Amino acid sequence: MKLTIDLNADMGEGLGAWTIGDGVDASMLPLISTANVAAGFHAGDSTTMVNTLRDAARHGVAIGVHPGFNDLIGFGRRHIDASPEELVNDVLYQLGALRELANREGLSLHHLKLHGALFMHAARDEDFAQALCATLQQSASELPIYCLAGTALDLAAAERGLPRVHEFYADRAYDDQGGIVFVRRVARLDPDQVASKVLRACHEGVVASTSGRLVPVSFQSICIHSDTPGALELTKAVRGALDEAGITVKAFSS
Amino acid sequence: MKLTIDLNADMGEGLGAWTIGDGVDASMLPLISTANVAAGFHAGDSTTMVNTLRDAARHGVAIGVHPGFNDLIGFGRRHIDASPEELVNDVLYQLGALRELANREGLSLHHLKLHGALFMHAARDEDFAQALCATLQQSASELPIYCLAGTALDLAAAERGLPRVHEFYADRAYDDQGGIVFVRRVARLDPDQVASKVLRACHEGVVASTSGRLVPVSFQSICIHSDTPGALELTKAVRGALDEAGITVKAFSS
Amino acid sequence: MKLTIDLNADMGEGLGAWTIGDGVDASMLPLISTANVAAGFHAGDSTTMVNTLRDAARHGVAIGVHPGFNDLIGFGRRHIDASPEELVNDVLYQLGALRELANREGLSLHHLKLHGALFMHAARDEDFAQALCATLQQSASELPIYCLAGTALDLAAAERGLPRVHEFYADRAYDDQGGIVFVRRVARLDPDQVASKVLRACHEGVVASTSGRLVPVSFQSICIHSDTPGALELTKAVRGALDEAGITVKAFSS
Amino acid sequence: MKLTIDLNADMGEGLGAWTIGDGVDASMLPLISTANVAAGFHAGDSTTMVNTLRDAARHGVAIGVHPGFNDLIGFGRRHIDASPEELVNDVLYQLGALRELANREGLSLHHLKLHGALFMHAARDEDFAQALCATLQQSASELPIYCLAGTALDLAAAERGLPRVHEFYADRAYDDQGGIVFVRRVARLDPDQVASKVLRACHEGVVASTSGRLVPVSFQSICIHSDTPGALELTKAVRGALDEAGITVKAFSS
Repeated sequence: MKLTIDLNADMGEGLGAWTIGDGVDASMLPLISTANVAAGFHAGDSTTMVNTLRDAARHGVAIGVHPGFNDLIGFGRRHIDASPEELVNDVLYQLGALRELANREGLSLHHLKLHGALFMHAARDEDFAQALCATLQQSASELPIYCLAGTALDLAAAERGLPRVHEFYADRAYDDQGGIVFVRRVARLDPDQVASKVLRACHEGVVASTSGRLVPVSFQSICIHSDTPGALELTKAVRGALDEAGITVKAFSS
Repeated sequence: MKLTIDLNADMGEGLGAWTIGDGVDASMLPLISTANVAAGFHAGDSTTMVNTLRDAARHGVAIGVHPGFNDLIGFGRRHIDASPEELVNDVLYQLGALRELANREGLSLHHLKLHGALFMHAARDEDFAQALCATLQQSASELPIYCLAGTALDLAAAERGLPRVHEFYADRAYDDQGGIVFVRRVARLDPDQVASKVLRACHEGVVASTSGRLVPVSFQSICIHSDTPGALELTKAVRGALDEAGITVKAFSS
Repeated sequence: MKLTIDLNADMGEGLGAWTIGDGVDASMLPLISTANVAAGFHAGDSTTMVNTLRDAARHGVAIGVHPGFNDLIGFGRRHIDASPEELVNDVLYQLGALRELANREGLSLHHLKLHGALFMHAARDEDFAQALCATLQQSASELPIYCLAGTALDLAAAERGLPRVHEFYADRAYDDQGGIVFVRRVARLDPDQVASKVLRACHEGVVASTSGRLVPVSFQSICIHSDTPGALELTKAVRGALDEAGITVKAFSS
Repeated sequence: MKLTIDLNADMGEGLGAWTIGDGVDASMLPLISTANVAAGFHAGDSTTMVNTLRDAARHGVAIGVHPGFNDLIGFGRRHIDASPEELVNDVLYQLGALRELANREGLSLHHLKLHGALFMHAARDEDFAQALCATLQQSASELPIYCLAGTALDLAAAERGLPRVHEFYADRAYDDQGGIVFVRRVARLDPDQVASKVLRACHEGVVASTSGRLVPVSFQSICIHSDTPGALELTKAVRGALDEAGITVKAFSS
């Protein structure tokens, strides 16, 4: 039974003149507590990043770096068969770029969350997860890693004593093992159902899997993907339900 | 006094997961007669191009290639100081890519129109205009070049006997010389005023300049930029006015 | 026992100010009969492409398009998990771009050969091989596909009656099944040994596998990768041996 | 009459599989005291950056960030008409990325030097120079800015009390005002003449302009562009002459 919870979403995923999803960054920011900010490889040129940092700061939203594969056309959703070393260098490059831009605004990074196919890769590939955590231990040991409990990244971070924040995915279906059911394109979801699912997870620590079984979930943050169709409505419903239930939405702090 | 007129707009200016402006391609296509299709340098990956070609074909809209500067972040709106030869090679590269994709769909290219800063560069820079027309004469002499009357590109094309289509810019202000007043960001315009301006241009061959003077305009196509705020409403108003006035909207043919 | 043979190499794999391998395009061209020209996705901007076309034409070298994954940093050697449709569109885009640039020079494309990880993907993935051949049948049925005999691409092309040219890889080791032994980085090879291997393949139709077994090979073209260390020396040795043996090096023709 | 002098060159200007110029990084490093490291926009992916940092550290060479225009094809040598704000954000992005990668190696940044067309832009454009210095004052006030004395960037930095290092360009011709004569492609220079020119500048504080006049030059670092043809030979000659004259080559320190 939670009294406070973190609510995170991806922000700043435009590119130059382009916006993503419903282009709802401005409307989402008042509703969430932490933002995962794209850093140039799958989305987010430097000026988009700066604007996102300023918008987030204005709403008191904490900022995480959201590194992805180097693939604008694929929006970081396509796996690229690069070596662990290349990928770790790419992650650190993106982290440094955002950290520098944030510093100028007087802001500190709050966390790290990988994006799309890179998120999945770190969840599954032990070599990459280990290489990444070795570097994070040296370069950003203070930043909690947002991830799914029990994945390769979660375990590698735990081994090294790195802080982690486990997520509950409000807009994804769960299988019987508590894993996420991967889909190419997320269907439009009913906001009330999503809100109920989130509340139940907060109150009872369980989620109903696609087969109807109740599966235990442990988490410190709720994630809503900002490019899910109707993301804004989902977030409003979830935030409204949390508020009504007296659960305070605030950025994770250890 | 025109009985038929061409109505062109830029289409397919998304990139991967991103859409541009109001994302109104699907709604614009029933209203226009020719589409300028981005070809990968300022927007439009290959799959976006294919989808745009198919959508245009379904609506009987003729297809032009819309080459731009090699600058995704800047959406082709920032001048790049490249040599005429480099730029001509880039234009031909984009033309060939779209032509090949169109051929597979059983479609032929109808025209060429440059995009953004490259459009402006060809309007002003004689060296580039000449180099481009020399190549077009060899490689695409059948494709009319959409341009503003009296610009460097217009004159270079005329010299070589290349077909041109002069445009009337429904969503741009004119100066006393019949030139376009350049603005960084186009304001939201009143659809009825734009429609009246277009009708007057069609009926009387004049446009009121920013100083209030009536300036003669000669054109075979009306252009509405699909990333102008409210582009869809403007296009609906213009198309409605043309229909009501009994002016048939159809693709230019010589 | 061959009297004539085709000798192909990758050309134009620079990018802007960069050159690849030993930067030996100019020295290689007098030695080979067909060039696989990069088309912008893994290497080769439009001006590099034009320069390569002109150089090849000057030496009477036939030109093939050499499409790759959209990955400059990885030089097209890293697999990207894109759908068959996306990849086919990318191949056709590159083919059209090079075809258009070649047309302006008065040149026709002679063949198609995929690059790097895309070559491997087409060799193994039936869905992509089938989708690619369906499009090539429509758009480029006259272009022989350079490939390894027995791969998915070879079989898919055969099914549709598309012309194929089977290759012998002078600078790669063979396994007992006649497959290529994949290595991350090719070691520097002895030119005389490579030349002997090629001659034996031409005369006897066999190659010694890594285990020492003689494996039959059937081919109409010899390939030397221009980024293999010492590629120029290898090509000189192979060409010299072919000349001495009275085997004429000329572009494949059906 | 100098007893010590800094000697800087651009390093790490490869991209993935590509190298630039004579590819002489490894041979140059023992000869110079500071390296300007490309940071991903005109050259230098993250892994190239890491390798360059490690190589430089091994030779005790101090590291500067070398931000350029976002233009791989043009190698940052083509001006892009972006706003001062966009460009400053791009510079800071690159600075942060390299700083983060350097930190992991236990290295600190030593200076900042702009690349190519961006270097020229900052030398001429007061708006950009001012905007850049405002940000550097906040984010990197400890890093000396390598520049030409008297340029817009030099003056803007001086106004804000930012440290500057003035450069002498060993491989460029000077005009009568002490400005650099811009050329598209630098000719191959005579190493002995370049060495003499450098020695004279060190000893007498003058350089002979293209018209033969002796022009005063003030500098704390000598620059040799690593993509000048024969850069390695030039650097060897210059370094040899400095050693022989008893002038110690070491990184600038205030």
